[in-house]
Amino acid sequence: MSSSAALRSLNVNNINQNVRKAQYAVRGELAVRSEEYRAKLKKGHPPTPPEEGLPFDKVISANIGNPQQLDQKPITFFRQVLSILEYPPLLENEKALTEGFGYKQDVIDRAKWLLSEVKSVGAYSQSQGVPGIRNSVAKFIERRDGYPSDPANIFLSAGASSGVNTLMNVICAKPETGILVPIPQYPLYTATLSVLNARCVPYYLDESKAWGTDLSAIRSAYQKAKSEGTDVRAIVVINPGNPTGASLSAEDVRSVLEFAAEEKLVVLGDEVYQTNVFIGEFTSFKKGLRDLQKEKLGKYDNVELASLNSISKGMVGECGHRGGYFELVGFDEEVKQQIYKFVSIMLCAPVIGQCLVEMQANPPKEGDPSYPLYKEEYDGIARGLQSRATALWEAFKQMEGVECQEPQGSMYLYPTIHLPRKAIEQAKKENRSPDEFWCFRLLDATGICVVPGSGFGQKEGTLHFRTTFLAPGTEWVGRITEFHRGFMREFGG
Amino acid sequence: MSSSAALRSLNVNNINQNVRKAQYAVRGELAVRSEEYRAKLKKGHPPTPPEEGLPFDKVISANIGNPQQLDQKPITFFRQVLSILEYPPLLENEKALTEGFGYKQDVIDRAKWLLSEVKSVGAYSQSQGVPGIRNSVAKFIERRDGYPSDPANIFLSAGASSGVNTLMNVICAKPETGILVPIPQYPLYTATLSVLNARCVPYYLDESKAWGTDLSAIRSAYQKAKSEGTDVRAIVVINPGNPTGASLSAEDVRSVLEFAAEEKLVVLGDEVYQTNVFIGEFTSFKKGLRDLQKEKLGKYDNVELASLNSISKGMVGECGHRGGYFELVGFDEEVKQQIYKFVSIMLCAPVIGQCLVEMQANPPKEGDPSYPLYKEEYDGIARGLQSRATALWEAFKQMEGVECQEPQGSMYLYPTIHLPRKAIEQAKKENRSPDEFWCFRLLDATGICVVPGSGFGQKEGTLHFRTTFLAPGTEWVGRITEFHRGFMREFGG
Repeated sequence: MSSSAALRSLNVNNINQNVRKAQYAVRGELAVRSEEYRAKLKKGHPPTPPEEGLPFDKVISANIGNPQQLDQKPITFFRQVLSILEYPPLLENEKALTEGFGYKQDVIDRAKWLLSEVKSVGAYSQSQGVPGIRNSVAKFIERRDGYPSDPANIFLSAGASSGVNTLMNVICAKPETGILVPIPQYPLYTATLSVLNARCVPYYLDESKAWGTDLSAIRSAYQKAKSEGTDVRAIVVINPGNPTGASLSAEDVRSVLEFAAEEKLVVLGDEVYQTNVFIGEFTSFKKGLRDLQKEKLGKYDNVELASLNSISKGMVGECGHRGGYFELVGFDEEVKQQIYKFVSIMLCAPVIGQCLVEMQANPPKEGDPSYPLYKEEYDGIARGLQSRATALWEAFKQMEGVECQEPQGSMYLYPTIHLPRKAIEQAKKENRSPDEFWCFRLLDATGICVVPGSGFGQKEGTLHFRTTFLAPGTEWVGRITEFHRGFMREFGG
Repeated sequence: MSSSAALRSLNVNNINQNVRKAQYAVRGELAVRSEEYRAKLKKGHPPTPPEEGLPFDKVISANIGNPQQLDQKPITFFRQVLSILEYPPLLENEKALTEGFGYKQDVIDRAKWLLSEVKSVGAYSQSQGVPGIRNSVAKFIERRDGYPSDPANIFLSAGASSGVNTLMNVICAKPETGILVPIPQYPLYTATLSVLNARCVPYYLDESKAWGTDLSAIRSAYQKAKSEGTDVRAIVVINPGNPTGASLSAEDVRSVLEFAAEEKLVVLGDEVYQTNVFIGEFTSFKKGLRDLQKEKLGKYDNVELASLNSISKGMVGECGHRGGYFELVGFDEEVKQQIYKFVSIMLCAPVIGQCLVEMQANPPKEGDPSYPLYKEEYDGIARGLQSRATALWEAFKQMEGVECQEPQGSMYLYPTIHLPRKAIEQAKKENRSPDEFWCFRLLDATGICVVPGSGFGQKEGTLHFRTTFLAPGTEWVGRITEFHRGFMREFGG
């Protein structure tokens, strides 16, 4: 304890130790250092003298799925509508909007309708979200799955993260409460469980099967936790996978649901990458569940599913607007009321983000004036993501000591790296895990920020890193391979 | 337990009982019923037949400080800038913007600068908030207080609520941790303490002294809690007051700080109504603290203060955009790092809300092209709030059995009501507190939604309700007095 700490009310030893225990590497020390480099480069006009300079002229934040930070252009239709929602007097001169700025009639119509629903984007909405927007989301889910969806079961949230936080707050009743979480996982789950002082029950994904779910691994993790006195209440599945990039088959989805029904577990379906699928087809947990319920009448009627979606991912990529939703299926009404109360304490999700959720759920349709441009932009983004994923994968395949699964979905690759013994020893000396050591070296040498596998979890004795494939161009990929060659030379791989 | 509950994982008895215990009346049953009425009225084109109809044609949500829901117009400068941030290609035709829509040069310049800071409002920002925006906030605080402010101590948040949630999560270490909370209070505080399973240490405000802080009441609440084994770590002060409408004197602010220093308590200064002051002058806790530190060298150097502000209140009223910030003063560096980590788990505050925080902190100045209109709008809103506050106060003074303090600040009046014995008995029969009973009757009869004093806390044996004075016109005020006359007749006051 520093000498001044005793003079204060708060020090790191007497604050909430559950917060202290929580780990969230995606925005941790590496990310902080990368922002320092970015600030240094920004100041560096004129460039800093070489002795203070950095060996790169740009920071590439491949640590987090943040498309618009990496030059992805927002979709024109969405943003034109938002500009009107922010300044409705634009509607007083529709001619100037259409002739001066190319706004189409459907942009104007959508903006007018949304304004009639929200009154003002500066007003709080209902805590569960604007009713008309929840309607649009329900209709989207119906089209996606071919089964009805009730707007009363939709909760709009500030990104999917806030939805996960809500659901976990309600589920985690005591220190013995456990939730099955895939490993590797997006660390929101373990961090939130730490803060709530509940137990993470890890189940390992199968790297050899393209990071698919392995029911026997789930089952044994569950049994082990139960035998240790953990009251397991829910299972998290991230599909498509983060950080793994896996895309689950309909069979995998179904087997998780069957297991959840058997053991009476809530299914938390993190489906924020549902449109980022390169191989196969996305199967939602909702559809999987309704299919099961139809086939085996009655048997699955009480399965509880919360499925989450977001405007931050997909081809929308509007992370900064903090929009998302979750749909509750099969939940008890009284529990739903408690969920409502919990979200009401924070009043409501950002209203402009709610409006983006509406447009993501209900984009321009064929025949609409904005459709051709929308389709061109959407498809362009999708193609770009796929080709960058492939380029990165090809590069990783060439790298010594690196193995990588073929990209199937989401925005990430999660390769295995094998590091030389000397590197592992050096990492130990610097009090870092070997993968973290490698990532810091990469950042210092190239300005590229990725996240070590230890931030997501990995099997004992394996090492990984997660990178997004959002950064444009391929030059940066070359920098990674070049760095790695040097690294292996230095440590005598 | 219902028969189906046993079939599910979650029921109201096995979820997190801390969530269940939490109360948040501002968005509770009354608010939900008022929204049902609103939906019914919206459907009612053509009007519902009289037997199904409601005895009013409009719902007035006076339960929550939501200015733009009640027709307050947003400030033009802010929204013009936001429209460009949402759709930057507007900048490709500046002539059409200025000539067709009256955008001034400072609107265009501000938008360009903000875009250079955020890159895209669709990108995540740093978790603590956009650096350039934190600079603007620090400069605002310096101008306000006459003392330096460090952007490294500013955290941008999704409204002040999210900031309070962060700070309480970090402070509340165990079930014995206590925080001094004024009663009456905005129920965010008690609700968050319930969720965190920590203790609310209530101290009563002095209604007879315009709801000022009473140091002897604070001291005795503190001593009592300590003697009961509560580890009191912080004191919340809401200034100007919510729900009370009080505006604290510089002496009151100072005496709270002296007490906090004496007992080594963190001061949580909820200052979201800092520009909503009708009587006297706002004194920030930061200024009060720096003054004390200057006068009594060394003695107050270790006081920890977190002061919160929001774009939802003041003359800005941009609730739906969920923007705010808190400034940390005197906090331990390691504790700050934990606060950073905690906020990073939710990634970042909504970026468009962050941009509004910037403009609130740094509005057009005298001489700027947008200044005249900005000033006219700002002053108009301020005048409107003050005159409505006065009109409401005058009306309450006329009401039988109602007493109300002169409005001093914030957006609320919090009158005492004395109800006849028969009404109190009837309330009991209906399982409601008397003030809640009165509020439901008011809503059912008039469509006006206010919040009973029991939702904020009140001294045993007293009854209150909180109303905003945001609704335009005075006709609705007449409806309250008319309803109350009928109520008193019915229950034989």
